[in-house]
Amino acid sequence: MAGRTGTIPDVPRFEVRPRIRIVRDDGVIVMGPGKADLLDEIQRQRSIRRASEALKMSYMRAWLLVRVMNEAFGSPLVNKLRGGAERGGAELTDLGREVLRLYREMEAQAREAMRPAARRLLTRLKGGGRRR
Amino acid sequence: MAGRTGTIPDVPRFEVRPRIRIVRDDGVIVMGPGKADLLDEIQRQRSIRRASEALKMSYMRAWLLVRVMNEAFGSPLVNKLRGGAERGGAELTDLGREVLRLYREMEAQAREAMRPAARRLLTRLKGGGRRR
Repeated sequence: MAGRTGTIPDVPRFEVRPRIRIVRDDGVIVMGPGKADLLDEIQRQRSIRRASEALKMSYMRAWLLVRVMNEAFGSPLVNKLRGGAERGGAELTDLGREVLRLYREMEAQAREAMRPAARRLLTRLKGGGRRR
Repeated sequence: MAGRTGTIPDVPRFEVRPRIRIVRDDGVIVMGPGKADLLDEIQRQRSIRRASEALKMSYMRAWLLVRVMNEAFGSPLVNKLRGGAERGGAELTDLGREVLRLYREMEAQAREAMRPAARRLLTRLKGGGRRR
């Protein structure tokens, strides 16, 4: 009906989301999509406070996630900058940048490898599985 | 200390978990790890009831997940068997088997592709990132 009247038919769209987590045997997620986004944002903002605001999470939560990572990797991924005018100034350490790079590499490789099967699966969906 | 006394040191182990979801633009997950496990279990058990018990979910919830999939794919992934002695007898349709196969293929390919980066990332973890 919608097609006949020239309006855009209400066809659903779909997105394939690979979410990779590194889980410690005590159940703690030591690396995952949320932590990777936080590292990205800290690198961009040079501040845990601004990163937490950009991701709409509390400063406390951002620090908790950073602490979990710092602890799991045995050495800091994020260094708090001292002596700055602003509270919460921070930057990624070499280790932090490496971990983030490897995580994004895993994501990209997973996404690329599963593309053919994903495409076939999406065509089975109602509406032909249009990508969002 | 533990090493000196000959006991096994308390080194954490880690697992890399790729979880793939197909998300419709209304936010509904139409395929993911839980639904794939349910399809697997239905295929094994030939019964939605027994599958739900094996996965420790309610029969209601199992049926809800099946309905979401059946609706999203526009045609059933699971057929309820009629006329059987037992309530809840069911089997996968050809489409159900194909969707499950493609999903597992995506998982396996993602896992395989990200293995080298995952291995490098794991070595950065405290305790050398021993695999679980």
